[in-house]
Amino acid sequence: MISNIKIENIKNQNLPAVIIAAGEGFRLFNGNGGIPKPLTPIFGKTLLERSIHSCREAGIKKIYVVVGCFKQEMVSFIEQLDQELDISIQVVPNPHWRKGNGTSVSAVSAFIDSAFLLLMCDHLCDPSILTNLIDAQNGENTCVLAVDYRTNDIFDIDDATKVVLDNFDITAIGKDIVKYDAVDTGFFLCQPSIFDALKSAQQDGDGSLSGAIRKLTKLGRIRAVNIGNRFWFDIDTPACLSSAKRKLLSAISKPNEDGYIARVLNRPLSCKLSELFVQTPITPNMITVLSFLICCIGAYLFSFGDYKWTLYAGILVQLSSIVDGCDGEISRLKFQASRFGAWFDTILDRYADVAIAAGITFGYWQTHPQPAVLLGGVIALSGFIMSSYVRKEYELRFNHRLHNSILNRLNKRDVRLFTIFIGALFNQPFEAMICVGVLSHIGVGVNILNIYRKKEKYS
Amino acid sequence: MISNIKIENIKNQNLPAVIIAAGEGFRLFNGNGGIPKPLTPIFGKTLLERSIHSCREAGIKKIYVVVGCFKQEMVSFIEQLDQELDISIQVVPNPHWRKGNGTSVSAVSAFIDSAFLLLMCDHLCDPSILTNLIDAQNGENTCVLAVDYRTNDIFDIDDATKVVLDNFDITAIGKDIVKYDAVDTGFFLCQPSIFDALKSAQQDGDGSLSGAIRKLTKLGRIRAVNIGNRFWFDIDTPACLSSAKRKLLSAISKPNEDGYIARVLNRPLSCKLSELFVQTPITPNMITVLSFLICCIGAYLFSFGDYKWTLYAGILVQLSSIVDGCDGEISRLKFQASRFGAWFDTILDRYADVAIAAGITFGYWQTHPQPAVLLGGVIALSGFIMSSYVRKEYELRFNHRLHNSILNRLNKRDVRLFTIFIGALFNQPFEAMICVGVLSHIGVGVNILNIYRKKEKYS
Repeated sequence: MISNIKIENIKNQNLPAVIIAAGEGFRLFNGNGGIPKPLTPIFGKTLLERSIHSCREAGIKKIYVVVGCFKQEMVSFIEQLDQELDISIQVVPNPHWRKGNGTSVSAVSAFIDSAFLLLMCDHLCDPSILTNLIDAQNGENTCVLAVDYRTNDIFDIDDATKVVLDNFDITAIGKDIVKYDAVDTGFFLCQPSIFDALKSAQQDGDGSLSGAIRKLTKLGRIRAVNIGNRFWFDIDTPACLSSAKRKLLSAISKPNEDGYIARVLNRPLSCKLSELFVQTPITPNMITVLSFLICCIGAYLFSFGDYKWTLYAGILVQLSSIVDGCDGEISRLKFQASRFGAWFDTILDRYADVAIAAGITFGYWQTHPQPAVLLGGVIALSGFIMSSYVRKEYELRFNHRLHNSILNRLNKRDVRLFTIFIGALFNQPFEAMICVGVLSHIGVGVNILNIYRKKEKYS
Repeated sequence: MISNIKIENIKNQNLPAVIIAAGEGFRLFNGNGGIPKPLTPIFGKTLLERSIHSCREAGIKKIYVVVGCFKQEMVSFIEQLDQELDISIQVVPNPHWRKGNGTSVSAVSAFIDSAFLLLMCDHLCDPSILTNLIDAQNGENTCVLAVDYRTNDIFDIDDATKVVLDNFDITAIGKDIVKYDAVDTGFFLCQPSIFDALKSAQQDGDGSLSGAIRKLTKLGRIRAVNIGNRFWFDIDTPACLSSAKRKLLSAISKPNEDGYIARVLNRPLSCKLSELFVQTPITPNMITVLSFLICCIGAYLFSFGDYKWTLYAGILVQLSSIVDGCDGEISRLKFQASRFGAWFDTILDRYADVAIAAGITFGYWQTHPQPAVLLGGVIALSGFIMSSYVRKEYELRFNHRLHNSILNRLNKRDVRLFTIFIGALFNQPFEAMICVGVLSHIGVGVNILNIYRKKEKYS
C-alpha cells in the first residue's frame, strides 16, 4: 500500500538549500565505529543523503553542503552522490568550523544573495517541514525558524535549543532558557540578513548560529513556524540514533489514512518487516510484486476447497496484507516513492482481490455446485473492485477524498483480507467473503445516496 | 457517458457579465410565432437562458441583462430565472435601444467600473469561449474580442461582422469589409475604456457597438483572441435557428474523446435520441439509470443461453451503449452537467459491465458446465473493470490522461459492447466476451510496461 504517499506541490524551485555538515560530531563519532557523523547510515541512507533527499522532495534543485571536519571523506562521498542524483550539489569548505556552526553559514555568503533553506545534517526531518518553511516566505527580509511545540516529547531536552515566543515572533533563544514555549528544530528559511547577523555575532566573539539568531531576534527579523505533529530528530549520540530509527519507522506509517486492521495489526508487523527489507537492495516495486504473489498462492490454495489448504490460504492472504504495507514504508524510508509505484501497487492489489474472490468461490463450488455460489462469487469479486473504483473515481471528479466514514473504513482492503483470514481459520472463507462483498456494495450505495443528497450534484 | 464533461478552472469570479437582449429581432420574431427573440427556445432553454448558463459555467456570479424592446415580457421572465438560479441577475433598461446596440452597452456604465464580459443574447456559445476571454485579460485597459478564423463555415457570412487582423491587433472591423481575416463572434472582454469609445461614436451619430470598436481600433485598445474550433452561432432568422440546432447537437458530442464505435455509430444515433429526450423533463441521471437497466435486461437474457434470447440481449446491450451517450449530451444541451452525474454514470457503467459478463458466462455455462468457462468469466469481468480502473487511477496519480493509443481506444466501452453485440448476432457472445476481456488485460499490461519504461517512475 503506497497510496499514502503525497507528492507535494512544489513551489520556489529556484530556492537553494544549505546543509551544514562541518562539525566533528564527536559524541556520535566515538560511538559508531569511526564513521564521520554525516556519513552515519540510518536504514541504508546516510544522514547527509537523508538531508539531500528531503530537500529534493521539497522541490529544491541546488544544494550547498558546508564541510569542515573530515573534509576529504565528505568531498569524495558528495562527488559520488552528485553523479547519482538529479540535483546539483556544491561543496563549500569551512576552514573555521571549529569556531562554531555560525561560521559554516557565513561560508556560503559568497555564493548566495537570496533566500535559502538551512538544514543541519544531523537532523532528520519530514520533507513537508521544508515545504512549510518555503510556503512561509512572505517577501520580507525576515528569517523563519521551524519550531516544535511538543516540548515534552523531545529526546534530549537538556541539549535542545529552546525558544520563547510572542505569538509567532521569537523573543528569546538558547539552550539554558528555563521557561520556553517550543524547541528550535534546526530548520530555517534564511534571508540574506542572516549574514550580517552572523558577522555581528562573530565580532562579539560568538561563532554559533544561535548567536546570530539572537541578533535577528533583537531586530525583529525572525519568525517561527509550527511544525505541528511532523517528524524530526536531532541525532547527537548513539542512543539518539536508535531512538531516531524507532521514531522514523513510526513516522513513515501514517495511521490516519490506514484502516482499522492496518493500524492495529498490520502496521506494527509491516514496520518490523520493513526494518529487515530496508537493509537489502529490495525495491518497493519488488515488495509490491511479492505481496501480489503471496496473495495469488493463497487464492490458489483456496480453490482446493478443503480445510487444510484453506487454513494456509487464509494465513497467506493475511501475510500478503501485512507485506503490502512494506512497499510504502520502504519507499518513504529510502526516498524511493514514485507515482508509478503507487499506481502499480493499487493495480496489483485489485488483481489480487480478483484472484482471492475467484479462488474462494471455486473452492466452495467444488462441494456446493449451485448457480447461487457463482452469483455469490460475482457479487464478492465486483464488490471488492467497485469499492475501490468508486473511491478513486470520486477523488478524480470532486478533487478531494471520499469521507472517511465508518462504512468506508470497513470497506478498506485491510479489513477485507482480515475478515477472509478469520473466515478461513473457521473454514468459512466463502461466507466471510460474501459478507465483505455485500458490505462493499452497501458502501457503494450509501456513498451514492449521501453524495446525491448533499446536493453536490450541481457543483 | 458523461465523462467527457470538463469542469473548467474558474478564474476571476468577481468579473460581471453583460448580456444585450434589447433589440427587436424582427427577422426571427416574424418567423417564430411572436415570441421575443431572447425568449426563443432551443432544446428546451431560451436563448437568454443559454447565455446566462454559459456565463455561469464560465464562473460568472453577477449578470446584467440590458432590455429594451419587449421590456415587460423580459423583466418577468428574468425575475423568475433569478429565483431559480444561484446567480445574481440585474435588469438594466435601455430606452434608447432603437438607436443601436451600442446604446445598450452604454446603459450599464452606471453600474460597472471594471472589466466585464459582453455577450449578445442571440449568440449561442461554448462556455469555454468565455473562460478563454477571461484568461486573455492582461491587466491593461485593452478590450478583447473573440474572433473565428473559420470564415468559410459561417452560416450567413454576408450579415457577419468581419475583422482585419495584424497578428492579434484588430486593424479594421465592419460588415462590408471585402478582404478580412476572421469574423467577430460578438463575445467581448470589455474594459471601462469601451464607455468613452461608445460616447465618442454616438457623438459622431453612430449608435452601434461596431462604431465604438472602430474607435478602440484607432486607439490600439482592442485585441483579438482566436476561439479555435469551438462552437458559436449567431441566430437572426428562422433558417439560422434550425441550422444552429444541428450545429449545437454536433458540438456537444465530442468525437475526439470518443472511441471508434462511439464516433462512427453511437454518436449519430444518440444525438437523434437526445433530440427527443431534450423535449421531455427527463434528466441526465434518469438516462444514466435507463441505460443501466437496458443493459441489465440484456445481461439477464444472455443468461438463458439460447440463441433467441441471446440475439435480443445483444441488441439491448448495443442499445444501452447508444443511450449511454445521451446523458452527457442532454447534460450539455440543458446545462445540467454535474460532478455527481459524471461519477454516478461511470459507476453504473461498471456495474452494467459486471452484469453482462456474469450473464454471458452463466448462459454459456448452461451448455458448457466446465470450470474453464468460469475462469473465462472471471477473466472477462475483471478485464472490463480493470481496464477502466487502470485509466482512472493513472489520471489520479499522474494528473493527466493515459495516452490514447490504439490499444487503449480498443479497450473503451463502446468497442467492448459492440463486439459483444456482434458476437451475439452470430450466437457467440461468450467467445466475443473472452476476446475483449483478454484484450483488456493485455492493455493493462502494456500500459504498465510502457509507463515503467518511460522512467516516469521517479517523477
